Amino acid sequence: MKYCSNCGKELIKMIPEGDSVERFVCTHCNTIHYQNPKIIVGTIPIYENQILLCKRGIEPQYGKWTIPAGFLELGERVEEGAIRETKEEANANVKIIKLQTVYSIPKISQVYLLFLAKLLDLNFLPGHETLETVLFPENQIPWEEIAFTAVKYALKTYLEDKKNNRLEITHIGFYPQHI
Amino acid sequence: MKYCSNCGKELIKMIPEGDSVERFVCTHCNTIHYQNPKIIVGTIPIYENQILLCKRGIEPQYGKWTIPAGFLELGERVEEGAIRETKEEANANVKIIKLQTVYSIPKISQVYLLFLAKLLDLNFLPGHETLETVLFPENQIPWEEIAFTAVKYALKTYLEDKKNNRLEITHIGFYPQHI
Repeated sequence: MKYCSNCGKELIKMIPEGDSVERFVCTHCNTIHYQNPKIIVGTIPIYENQILLCKRGIEPQYGKWTIPAGFLELGERVEEGAIRETKEEANANVKIIKLQTVYSIPKISQVYLLFLAKLLDLNFLPGHETLETVLFPENQIPWEEIAFTAVKYALKTYLEDKKNNRLEITHIGFYPQHI
Repeated sequence: MKYCSNCGKELIKMIPEGDSVERFVCTHCNTIHYQNPKIIVGTIPIYENQILLCKRGIEPQYGKWTIPAGFLELGERVEEGAIRETKEEANANVKIIKLQTVYSIPKISQVYLLFLAKLLDLNFLPGHETLETVLFPENQIPWEEIAFTAVKYALKTYLEDKKNNRLEITHIGFYPQHI
């Protein structure tokens, strides 16, 4: 961030009055440009002891497996965004069951909100950014080929909760704690 | 958003290739300026059937009651941010118990993550943006004077969960559904 998105003048970095953190500030139009963590939303689509995974067709982690997820858009509710991403990446129709995990990655200022969801039919197929969409039996998840730790954490907590019959809980995790 | 924060040139609004949503794009340095919802984190500090509330000393909702909460900063985990805000607004020390609510307000692109937390001592006192900090008995919450619907939703779901002995659940709500 170098220029003011409001007036185009150069920004400086300073701690605004009453604040305790350095911000990008425009001294020309007096705008403080706050920067905020980003929200990623997605679902674990489940169907009769199977989980729908997507093989990534884009970088990063091209060719690795993930669940359908992506950035929350302006004007969206979190669960709406998760359903939209599931449709975009896997053309899959789901119904949200519960919030499985909230996973922070402070190093890159991302927060994942991943929902457990019921896959409503088998009409899924790869979206533009997906190479393959496959229903994996729970005991055949390709753990070594999962793209992101946030996804691995969501899948692991779900399978553990299921085993322990604790399906109501939402797990709070963060990188690098849960690798 | 009018100017490119990267090179200072004027932005245009267009749908980038492969995208489906209009973005602010700089055709000079080829930067797409995504805009994202913001995360607000906070706690419901509880102490022996009482809840710590803060009387707001700033706009909006000056003079109304709320729980300690504020914008998540870059580089923070969600629960870290909630603890920091509780310290900043009420000088209160808390231990996170669980995530009480995830509350979306799509109209202003905000997502609240509010945690239930145990107040660890009684050394709380108002921070710079707070007029008063008061421990309210659960049956004396000033419902008509609560600042935000996201806060009201968190308090109501907590008291209901407590009554029904369902203290593990995380509630997903949104405005205007839960007014």
